[in-house]
Amino acid sequence: MSDRAYALFEEQQKARGIDLDQVKAKLKALKIETPSWGYGDSGTRFKVFRKEGVPRDPFEKFEDAAQVHRLTGLCPSVAIHIPWDKVDDYGKLRRHAESLGLSVGAVNPNLFQDDEYMLGSVTNADPAIRRRAADHLLECVDIAKETGSRDLSLWFADGTNYPGQGDIRKRKAWMLEALAGMYKAMTPDMRMLIEYKCFEPAFYHTDIADWGMAYNFALKLGPQAEVLVDTGHHLQGANIEHIVAYLIDEKRLGGFHFNSRKYADDDLIVGSSNPYELFLIFYQIVNASIDPDPGIRSTVDNIAYMIDQSHNIEAKIPAMIRSVLNVQTQYAKALLVDHAEVERAQLRGDVLGAEDAVRRAFEFDVTPLLHAVREEQGLPLDPMRAYLESGYGSGILARGKGGASW
Amino acid sequence: MSDRAYALFEEQQKARGIDLDQVKAKLKALKIETPSWGYGDSGTRFKVFRKEGVPRDPFEKFEDAAQVHRLTGLCPSVAIHIPWDKVDDYGKLRRHAESLGLSVGAVNPNLFQDDEYMLGSVTNADPAIRRRAADHLLECVDIAKETGSRDLSLWFADGTNYPGQGDIRKRKAWMLEALAGMYKAMTPDMRMLIEYKCFEPAFYHTDIADWGMAYNFALKLGPQAEVLVDTGHHLQGANIEHIVAYLIDEKRLGGFHFNSRKYADDDLIVGSSNPYELFLIFYQIVNASIDPDPGIRSTVDNIAYMIDQSHNIEAKIPAMIRSVLNVQTQYAKALLVDHAEVERAQLRGDVLGAEDAVRRAFEFDVTPLLHAVREEQGLPLDPMRAYLESGYGSGILARGKGGASW
Amino acid sequence: MSDRAYALFEEQQKARGIDLDQVKAKLKALKIETPSWGYGDSGTRFKVFRKEGVPRDPFEKFEDAAQVHRLTGLCPSVAIHIPWDKVDDYGKLRRHAESLGLSVGAVNPNLFQDDEYMLGSVTNADPAIRRRAADHLLECVDIAKETGSRDLSLWFADGTNYPGQGDIRKRKAWMLEALAGMYKAMTPDMRMLIEYKCFEPAFYHTDIADWGMAYNFALKLGPQAEVLVDTGHHLQGANIEHIVAYLIDEKRLGGFHFNSRKYADDDLIVGSSNPYELFLIFYQIVNASIDPDPGIRSTVDNIAYMIDQSHNIEAKIPAMIRSVLNVQTQYAKALLVDHAEVERAQLRGDVLGAEDAVRRAFEFDVTPLLHAVREEQGLPLDPMRAYLESGYGSGILARGKGGASW
Amino acid sequence: MSDRAYALFEEQQKARGIDLDQVKAKLKALKIETPSWGYGDSGTRFKVFRKEGVPRDPFEKFEDAAQVHRLTGLCPSVAIHIPWDKVDDYGKLRRHAESLGLSVGAVNPNLFQDDEYMLGSVTNADPAIRRRAADHLLECVDIAKETGSRDLSLWFADGTNYPGQGDIRKRKAWMLEALAGMYKAMTPDMRMLIEYKCFEPAFYHTDIADWGMAYNFALKLGPQAEVLVDTGHHLQGANIEHIVAYLIDEKRLGGFHFNSRKYADDDLIVGSSNPYELFLIFYQIVNASIDPDPGIRSTVDNIAYMIDQSHNIEAKIPAMIRSVLNVQTQYAKALLVDHAEVERAQLRGDVLGAEDAVRRAFEFDVTPLLHAVREEQGLPLDPMRAYLESGYGSGILARGKGGASW
Repeated sequence: MSDRAYALFEEQQKARGIDLDQVKAKLKALKIETPSWGYGDSGTRFKVFRKEGVPRDPFEKFEDAAQVHRLTGLCPSVAIHIPWDKVDDYGKLRRHAESLGLSVGAVNPNLFQDDEYMLGSVTNADPAIRRRAADHLLECVDIAKETGSRDLSLWFADGTNYPGQGDIRKRKAWMLEALAGMYKAMTPDMRMLIEYKCFEPAFYHTDIADWGMAYNFALKLGPQAEVLVDTGHHLQGANIEHIVAYLIDEKRLGGFHFNSRKYADDDLIVGSSNPYELFLIFYQIVNASIDPDPGIRSTVDNIAYMIDQSHNIEAKIPAMIRSVLNVQTQYAKALLVDHAEVERAQLRGDVLGAEDAVRRAFEFDVTPLLHAVREEQGLPLDPMRAYLESGYGSGILARGKGGASW
Repeated sequence: MSDRAYALFEEQQKARGIDLDQVKAKLKALKIETPSWGYGDSGTRFKVFRKEGVPRDPFEKFEDAAQVHRLTGLCPSVAIHIPWDKVDDYGKLRRHAESLGLSVGAVNPNLFQDDEYMLGSVTNADPAIRRRAADHLLECVDIAKETGSRDLSLWFADGTNYPGQGDIRKRKAWMLEALAGMYKAMTPDMRMLIEYKCFEPAFYHTDIADWGMAYNFALKLGPQAEVLVDTGHHLQGANIEHIVAYLIDEKRLGGFHFNSRKYADDDLIVGSSNPYELFLIFYQIVNASIDPDPGIRSTVDNIAYMIDQSHNIEAKIPAMIRSVLNVQTQYAKALLVDHAEVERAQLRGDVLGAEDAVRRAFEFDVTPLLHAVREEQGLPLDPMRAYLESGYGSGILARGKGGASW
Repeated sequence: MSDRAYALFEEQQKARGIDLDQVKAKLKALKIETPSWGYGDSGTRFKVFRKEGVPRDPFEKFEDAAQVHRLTGLCPSVAIHIPWDKVDDYGKLRRHAESLGLSVGAVNPNLFQDDEYMLGSVTNADPAIRRRAADHLLECVDIAKETGSRDLSLWFADGTNYPGQGDIRKRKAWMLEALAGMYKAMTPDMRMLIEYKCFEPAFYHTDIADWGMAYNFALKLGPQAEVLVDTGHHLQGANIEHIVAYLIDEKRLGGFHFNSRKYADDDLIVGSSNPYELFLIFYQIVNASIDPDPGIRSTVDNIAYMIDQSHNIEAKIPAMIRSVLNVQTQYAKALLVDHAEVERAQLRGDVLGAEDAVRRAFEFDVTPLLHAVREEQGLPLDPMRAYLESGYGSGILARGKGGASW
Repeated sequence: MSDRAYALFEEQQKARGIDLDQVKAKLKALKIETPSWGYGDSGTRFKVFRKEGVPRDPFEKFEDAAQVHRLTGLCPSVAIHIPWDKVDDYGKLRRHAESLGLSVGAVNPNLFQDDEYMLGSVTNADPAIRRRAADHLLECVDIAKETGSRDLSLWFADGTNYPGQGDIRKRKAWMLEALAGMYKAMTPDMRMLIEYKCFEPAFYHTDIADWGMAYNFALKLGPQAEVLVDTGHHLQGANIEHIVAYLIDEKRLGGFHFNSRKYADDDLIVGSSNPYELFLIFYQIVNASIDPDPGIRSTVDNIAYMIDQSHNIEAKIPAMIRSVLNVQTQYAKALLVDHAEVERAQLRGDVLGAEDAVRRAFEFDVTPLLHAVREEQGLPLDPMRAYLESGYGSGILARGKGGASW
């Protein structure tokens, strides 16, 4: 059935003028970084449910991540979080990764879990605490050198809960100071990815609250600083794909933290709440990938796709497999948009025609295409089933409860 | 200066036809219940900052609560949370409370912190877990008998994170079943207060998501079931005072969990984010308190005002003092509305006049009034300063870090 | 290609245990009412763009609606709005409809376009205006008798812009009074569908602001009163499918006003902003349609599906065709959910499995199925193309600009 | 009573170390521009209620605006909207304004009310329409030269309703092109104020959707381009005062369009929905006004405060008086913040102390202060009452209904 399904799919797409070889090549080139902390326990403020079989250390996290990559072919790198993934010897961690067919991805500093950071880290009114936080940023640059990581991925919990609690403009200056110090320490091949978030854990103001603030810091720092879009970090109603297109156009979109949400930063499996939104984000990306401007195309080529979620109630590894499959699915659909058709409709002012040309690509069932790609790559057609049947999940139960948490 | 300030205030209000004796009497009758868990450590999902001096057990929580009451005269009762406040002998806890001039207030079951409740408590698909949860509800009724508590205050974390995860309608039936079992166990003088919340910790659907669902359950259960409004549990833009007025009109408003928010359920100090909203809630309550219908008036008289907040970064006891003072302040302002003036403006279609008549009451500085009331009650004029100067805060530091958390 | 596509689709679904004959039968039974005002000009507060060819009177609106039905087979009835569709002889309008193969659907009173209603219609503080508004409701009952309409569809713009402007509880009583008067005038086969809306055109409080208020009025009125869910009338984040499931369970879901939105009541083409949400609404409906309780099933059978949108910039008739096709598409997908599989996953606590079982149905491309259904019904496979090629759109240009607006 | 009230107020504030002379001087310097269109009819998409006495032409609008200034002393300039305020001779309009003690304020182009702009003005896919729109911008620069206006205030309705309808990145380039053309035409003393809006009338994407986009355009254009913050143009939860502080810090805050909202762009009277938010905006402004950096202080000095509201149901002139009084009130309160006290609390990490120091200023009743200022300025103590007693409102009824609308 699978062969006939693909044959039919191929016929349909050819009739639309879609070059499936190119689509497949793009799908094979897709890389999605999974986060080490996505394999550990997480929860809400009300409860962290401890799961059996959760990795007990960074090395085991990479082992779990390797399973995801082995079955999907999509996830060759793993982001780390310091100090959650602190080890004595980062060279050893790197070699461990490599032995599993992985590399160490983005290095994420953590500036929100020490008692001293209660009122801010790099934006704390106390210069000694700011210094300590800045030192941690520099430490992460050093770690990135050892792990061979290109990207430093920065999310700050810094903000305030009440009017007056902090001096908003001074904190802005302190933030810039810390970022500038880190920027200077980076090697020329490194990138600083600046994340923003509208709220939580700060409930009045967050020092880097939206893409405009992250982007403005990046502008001041230099070309190695770019913006990181976390799909769950926007106010209700924000048009994320607009922001994505805007940042690509400014050549400052560095990457994504993918997850999905219905309310706040729910950190659910990406594509599970509103799959069309994920598709529309990829539609903008794919559209930019054929831009005449090589700078735009290069920006697109260097987007770091990363998962950042909290699987509070789901089995960790299957949740990660589901996540990367959802990303792959929506990317595949976006690759089926006929951009010339959209443009023709735009030029003749045909609102319904243009909308239809985009939405129709979303409505295709890309299962046959993904099966064909996986077959060509020697991967299981159904990675989820392959995982469930692999026995890996029951094997790790021996780790017991109480493993790492983020 | 204080005397002259009050004299002037009195003159102003008399000129407006406000009966200050009645206002003062109402202010003296105001009672705000503080929650035992508001004295313990709390945090966000990212971090719980452990504070020095936090109570180590329920008895110490009552001691801290007694300070708040001693200085403000507003907080004669303390809500408890089971099992956080589980003790061997509730009679002993009750006597401890009484020895401090307090009583035990609402009993709050906790159905979200056991591993078994990961996929729901009373709405879990597993009947054994539902049974266990229902038993806990009955246990809380028994505890309320021992503590002499009138109110059982019910918040359920039950909900789902993904479409399909649970059967929404079956869960609704299971919820009703559990509530009905508890209702039957209550003594005739008890009340069941049903709380609702739009999201968190569930991120797709919450079994009791809004006031309509809580109200409908109350209707089905009987007259001892009422709705509890938590001011932080609404979607952005919800007109809370409208809901309050509506529920009073249906004689089903049982009480409040006060806190304030800008984004989600931020659980900040009540009145700190949008004080006018708190005033407008009280405006509806005060307006209903002079309704010709004695049922309406009785509903108003029995509203349980309760604080429910997370003081993640603030000193616990001062945060509680600030909270109850904010409630008192907005209530005092609401007592200054000239309802007849508002009504006259409404009847002549004078939009601006009616708005002005309400807002003007908010704009008065009620400090002289509150000073006068406190003086008559033998309370410190400035309870916050009195607390800070009392030495109590430094005395409890001996408790060390790592006390109770919610 | 179409035949092979359907053969493959059939094979796939049979392998899943889906009874396609039943699915087709359900699809053929789907009826979506289009609104007369959807064929006229509409706009935002900033501008109404006047289109060529817009109907000049109710009769022409029915002619346009007949085109939509002729090509889709989905829209045998047309809702009318009084006084926009006021005619001297409703019998004549009914016969005109019948001659076009249509019937007159829900009657919608209009209580927001007269100067007198500036501060409210049925909730106006002036009893004379309330009387006038109530009379209009009765007039609509009379019209429904003449047009043979079962449903009276009620949306009230009533509300206030400022605190104090109106007495919320008095207005509640006046609303009930008006509804009760209308209810009494209805014949036993009529239904009152009560719509709610969180805001707009009122910006402080809206008298029927949410489903809970609409539902509570319905409860007080009697079994012929039900709730009408307009998919654009909720606060950001509201879980509409939860409300739908809840109302079905209470046997009080009367119908829908379909449209889609990203921000407020955007009134865009249904299914264009978040198609998964529309699918999930139908998933709840389909799930209830197989409930053992015949009352639940009967409620589902009687749901009135209606479009209510503003095609400000789109061609009117194509926009309507697109809308009903989107509804049909998502309904078709929802019919492919394997409810037994979902339930098994729920019972074993398999969050990811349950989610997958629902989402997978959404990911099927139902084009082959819809083509098959249309073929069996003697309809054009692609109704939109058929319309564009029909010449009807250019024929009506002779009507000129400045036709009816809502 | 007024004298004693002020004496007491003065005593209180002196005890806090507030320099009331300086406060008064600042209050006397406050200027709030009212919009010509605020005196005309406006409405929602459902209905524009036509009022008696609304101005019939731009000249009458200035006459009404003169009343507001005469009674409040706050509103010496009036913004105009082209073509709503199109006149043959702008010199005549300017002299008319001057004869009334007014000047012509910001010039606002209108690019959303012509049929050609249905799919965009400066971002339309049709180059002829873009040219036409760009020409209108240049026309407005010419008008500003004639009227002596410093500010060109730009709001674009440009955006799309559906994914695919427009090419987001091309539209961005077209927007920049149009702005650059206008910028070049400006004289060195002119300013371009770029407004942003999250949605409406576009419901999928708006070309200038948030402050970041407006700011980025300003950066590209040059120092005469700044951002205009409309307080109603943000997504729910946005921290506006943070944006304000951020833009001041970048020396790119050009001005405000004041109004208030609870839901979307409700365009209600500023300060009526959440007065504390307005206070907090002014707190940031006042805090920046004492910054050591002269560039920051100069930015603050040049902020254009403008009203932009829709008084759909209120009497026009009284609504404007109420609006500017609300602004004055919150500004006065912000002037009472003891910034040194706030800073001390911030430095010692005293969250509650810092919050209290800000909120306390809000809680003062500034009526005595405003009375004193008005008295010193020879203005009526109660401008609203003075207006209502002036007879002006009944005098203009002779204009009849059907005056100008925006």
